[in-house]
Amino acid sequence: MYESYWQKKGDETTVVIPGWQFMSYFSDATRLCWFLEPEFAKQIVRLHNVVGNAVTENRHIVVGTGSTQLFQAALYALSPCAEAEPISVVSAAPYYSSYPLITDCLKSRLYKWAGDARSFSKNGPYIELVTSPNNPDGFARRSVVNGSEGILIHDLAYYWPQYTPISSPANYDLMLFTVSKSTGHAGMRIGWALVKDEDVARKMTKYIEINTIGVSKDSQVRAAKVLKVISDNSEGPNEGDSFFEFSYRVMAKRWKQLREAVQQSGLFSVSDFPPQLCMFLNRVFEPQPAFAWIKCEGDIEDCESFLRGKKILTRGGKHFGVNPNYVRISMLDRDKNYETFVRRLSTIRS
Amino acid sequence: MYESYWQKKGDETTVVIPGWQFMSYFSDATRLCWFLEPEFAKQIVRLHNVVGNAVTENRHIVVGTGSTQLFQAALYALSPCAEAEPISVVSAAPYYSSYPLITDCLKSRLYKWAGDARSFSKNGPYIELVTSPNNPDGFARRSVVNGSEGILIHDLAYYWPQYTPISSPANYDLMLFTVSKSTGHAGMRIGWALVKDEDVARKMTKYIEINTIGVSKDSQVRAAKVLKVISDNSEGPNEGDSFFEFSYRVMAKRWKQLREAVQQSGLFSVSDFPPQLCMFLNRVFEPQPAFAWIKCEGDIEDCESFLRGKKILTRGGKHFGVNPNYVRISMLDRDKNYETFVRRLSTIRS
Repeated sequence: MYESYWQKKGDETTVVIPGWQFMSYFSDATRLCWFLEPEFAKQIVRLHNVVGNAVTENRHIVVGTGSTQLFQAALYALSPCAEAEPISVVSAAPYYSSYPLITDCLKSRLYKWAGDARSFSKNGPYIELVTSPNNPDGFARRSVVNGSEGILIHDLAYYWPQYTPISSPANYDLMLFTVSKSTGHAGMRIGWALVKDEDVARKMTKYIEINTIGVSKDSQVRAAKVLKVISDNSEGPNEGDSFFEFSYRVMAKRWKQLREAVQQSGLFSVSDFPPQLCMFLNRVFEPQPAFAWIKCEGDIEDCESFLRGKKILTRGGKHFGVNPNYVRISMLDRDKNYETFVRRLSTIRS
Repeated sequence: MYESYWQKKGDETTVVIPGWQFMSYFSDATRLCWFLEPEFAKQIVRLHNVVGNAVTENRHIVVGTGSTQLFQAALYALSPCAEAEPISVVSAAPYYSSYPLITDCLKSRLYKWAGDARSFSKNGPYIELVTSPNNPDGFARRSVVNGSEGILIHDLAYYWPQYTPISSPANYDLMLFTVSKSTGHAGMRIGWALVKDEDVARKMTKYIEINTIGVSKDSQVRAAKVLKVISDNSEGPNEGDSFFEFSYRVMAKRWKQLREAVQQSGLFSVSDFPPQLCMFLNRVFEPQPAFAWIKCEGDIEDCESFLRGKKILTRGGKHFGVNPNYVRISMLDRDKNYETFVRRLSTIRS
């Protein structure tokens, strides 16, 4: 979906890297996160300040091979190593389907997946993942476990103005972001964490050092360029042509098409979201999430299978810890694929 | 050390990446390793064929964020998941100091570090890491455990003609390589595995999918370019100016300087290596490893501390599973730093 915007921008975000540059493991040995490229760090801070979606003051930046690696770095950093029992990791259902897979992948004795945060009632320390706006259902979220020893990880991959009104700068202890959802450059495998506690940031850096000895310099350099162009265009005279204006308009159009298709078919439902003022775009709008979280109404029990029969590929609710009458589908595919999807959906009858 | 070569090559290895390219998670969805760039795969096969250091026929290529990630992918893929007890991971001392740290980082119940392969005598399955030429001591190696249920991982990061004579193409089940040691581009974080068994390659791919959802496209594109230039120059009319000729000459010079410094000082010793015919460079030479593995003679017990007092930073033997009268020092630093090191070493007296 974002590809056409970057094509239109032509050479503005092109990077040129000579063979003898960025050869070292190190980016800046004096920095806590020694493999973070200084220019990328600068552009992260600038973009958050331009958009107003996160507080960067008094935060350490840790770069990761996507926010997926940073999530694991956070688990490593936040697990109390002296404990005999692994710390419980929870998130309110429906939760991002990769969380349980990642958490339990190596059967770590440091942490273990403990399922839906809403039904978690164990005493003692735990880690709660708060994804806001949430993947898969798009709702804004706060922590739900009412324990005194909870440690929170805020996954803010979708807290950008094309998906949801930016009401105020997020101000949490540990926040995760990624270029794949903000700018569309999934292939770069670049994410970043804003971390308040120095010791946690240091341990996260240590994990990434052990896991991959740092993060691709080439992708950091390219990400810095893309972020810079987004900030420049958001502030400049051609503001109407800015990245977030473009992506906001595409998402608005797609959500309108989706709601029409759902209405035409009559077999499905999608949530309504309360409209809010976006301080960045300076307008009131309803959230328009990166995923559609569709419920099959009536007696269709396995919505994923049902839609597969109609040539629509989705991911079923059970992967997200809920009933199979829900499915998730990406709203970010290329124009042509998206048009095919809404056309097919609109013509489904019982 | 390699930087000056790539500077001299100028634009030959420069990459230009427009903002709208390589945006997707996918490189080739039809491939087993779906995030491997086809051009990079092609250049890997070509370079191994040109150099003759590894068999690529009937092998699956898995790309990783450095060979460090591939080592973890291999542990994940080779661990028998049904076992109650973690599988033992061993390597003959002196072994690469990161192996135990990586293996035990997350206290996995799939595998655990079990130390020096030479003293390993447990029955049942185990994983043995064979690094050849070895880090830190530079010797060619074979597996040493005499068990019937051993699974081998061959780390061949240093099996390139600047470090050791290429006697024949390596032909093992699971072989790891990395650009950081072959071409010097550590900042790219790119490695690759040649894997015979399809199921193992599939599981390794799965690990990298869970760990980082693939590998930076930008760095793969850049690595492909660098490998292509190395192959082109090795085969072309200016063969004398090829990357391996250059790096072979620098290493030969540095090892000569090192042996002279060791002799002048009289306080240290380094191993002699038997000369062998290199089929690629078509000459007989002694291995000239990427690290110097230096022994403090006499009554210096802690060689690392002793050398730190002489302003030489090394890593002590205990990190590699042996006595502290050994230290490892990199032979790949920039010219100026290397000259300073050998000058300092040569003037140390008891």
